[in-house]
Amino acid sequence: MSEAPTADTRPVFTAQVLSILPEMFPGPLGLSLAGRALDRGIWGLKTLDIRDFSRDKHRSVDDTPAGGGPGMVMRADIVADAIDAARADADPDWPLVYLSPRGRRFDQAMAGDWAARGGVTLLCGRFEGVDQRVLDARGVEEVSVGDFVLSGGEPAAIVMLDAVIRLLPGVMGKAESAEEESFSAGLLEAPHYTRPTVWDGRAIPDVLLSGHHGRIAAWRQDRAEEITRLRRPDLWSTYERTANEEG
Amino acid sequence: MSEAPTADTRPVFTAQVLSILPEMFPGPLGLSLAGRALDRGIWGLKTLDIRDFSRDKHRSVDDTPAGGGPGMVMRADIVADAIDAARADADPDWPLVYLSPRGRRFDQAMAGDWAARGGVTLLCGRFEGVDQRVLDARGVEEVSVGDFVLSGGEPAAIVMLDAVIRLLPGVMGKAESAEEESFSAGLLEAPHYTRPTVWDGRAIPDVLLSGHHGRIAAWRQDRAEEITRLRRPDLWSTYERTANEEG
Repeated sequence: MSEAPTADTRPVFTAQVLSILPEMFPGPLGLSLAGRALDRGIWGLKTLDIRDFSRDKHRSVDDTPAGGGPGMVMRADIVADAIDAARADADPDWPLVYLSPRGRRFDQAMAGDWAARGGVTLLCGRFEGVDQRVLDARGVEEVSVGDFVLSGGEPAAIVMLDAVIRLLPGVMGKAESAEEESFSAGLLEAPHYTRPTVWDGRAIPDVLLSGHHGRIAAWRQDRAEEITRLRRPDLWSTYERTANEEG
Repeated sequence: MSEAPTADTRPVFTAQVLSILPEMFPGPLGLSLAGRALDRGIWGLKTLDIRDFSRDKHRSVDDTPAGGGPGMVMRADIVADAIDAARADADPDWPLVYLSPRGRRFDQAMAGDWAARGGVTLLCGRFEGVDQRVLDARGVEEVSVGDFVLSGGEPAAIVMLDAVIRLLPGVMGKAESAEEESFSAGLLEAPHYTRPTVWDGRAIPDVLLSGHHGRIAAWRQDRAEEITRLRRPDLWSTYERTANEEG
């Protein structure tokens, strides 16, 4: 059951998604945390079907790659029309993004930046990709979810929107929190424990049961530093450099 | 319309997903490339609702974090029971993975490895995370989709499964191809072009229209190397080192 936003509610964030598979949205974003925020009108979703901008009765959007090779490429003219239709409705401050493994990698700072800008236009490609000329002509930024190849941009768009939506004001309740989580201080998180106090012969570390807030905070900081140093030397060196500059 | 797999069809890959939101699956994986492969029985999906392993009438799975702090932590005993039920049905060769920003980053090599193993068990956390003891006791590998925080592991699981499923035999048709794509040779992809030959005053590079296969291949290799060097010095140095060792 969707709770209809009241007439004077304007979403604090709008996601425009250009895709040949608009039925993939909201998908997982229609449930749980993001779904409740969508129902409450905190964020809004506008999907555009790129096939609506096709020039033929088959609603085709792609053609064979220039120079040969496998797969199909989405046409510059059709994609440009879809982008122009979306951007006519967009705030110019919203990023215009093509989901692509060739792009800059999405991270927590980018999620925060998008959330603050109030919206984003996400172009999802399928097949081999999109004609390079439309990316150049429209100044589209390429962003990657990671070093792997997907069937299309849509699953990546869902992940990025999930990361952005939970940061919007009013979305997270007391069961969720952005205060002490990975990347919030440039470190991975310390391990978590909860009841039972002993499980399967394994006890919760004593310090966490001590009630001594200062020692608990110090233990968590030590564990966060330790796990970051061991698992992510790249994050650790950035953290150390920043700490030294501030110190 | 699902095409029921015939009785003698055994999926070449099985995804077991442990979640308190099993209704998020198959979600986007029920459509397009992955959806057709699911309908054809190339891969199979088994979701387990972690709440089914709760010990109380509220079906609760979490409790407050030991040592205090915001959020809730999923209990070791309940999660262990869910894992044990899944693994009783799993091939021991299938990876047992917890989706977590503290984990090793998912990449194309890991997608290929999972595809080859024939299955995976994916534990999706919500709230602040899962009690560390169950990860230790069950030897769960932590894997991260990227350096950002999601509302839960589910969207990350969808992305990873999409990357794996497209690599399974029989999934990709002629519109898709893994032959020349980002990461297949340690490089980002060269740009793509298709008709029209001139669009918005921008022409397709002459070489791609030359019909000279050798020159086209050399141009694509040069562009792939150039874009990798410019955008991803980390990938580029790995590529150069490998090329030198082979040379």
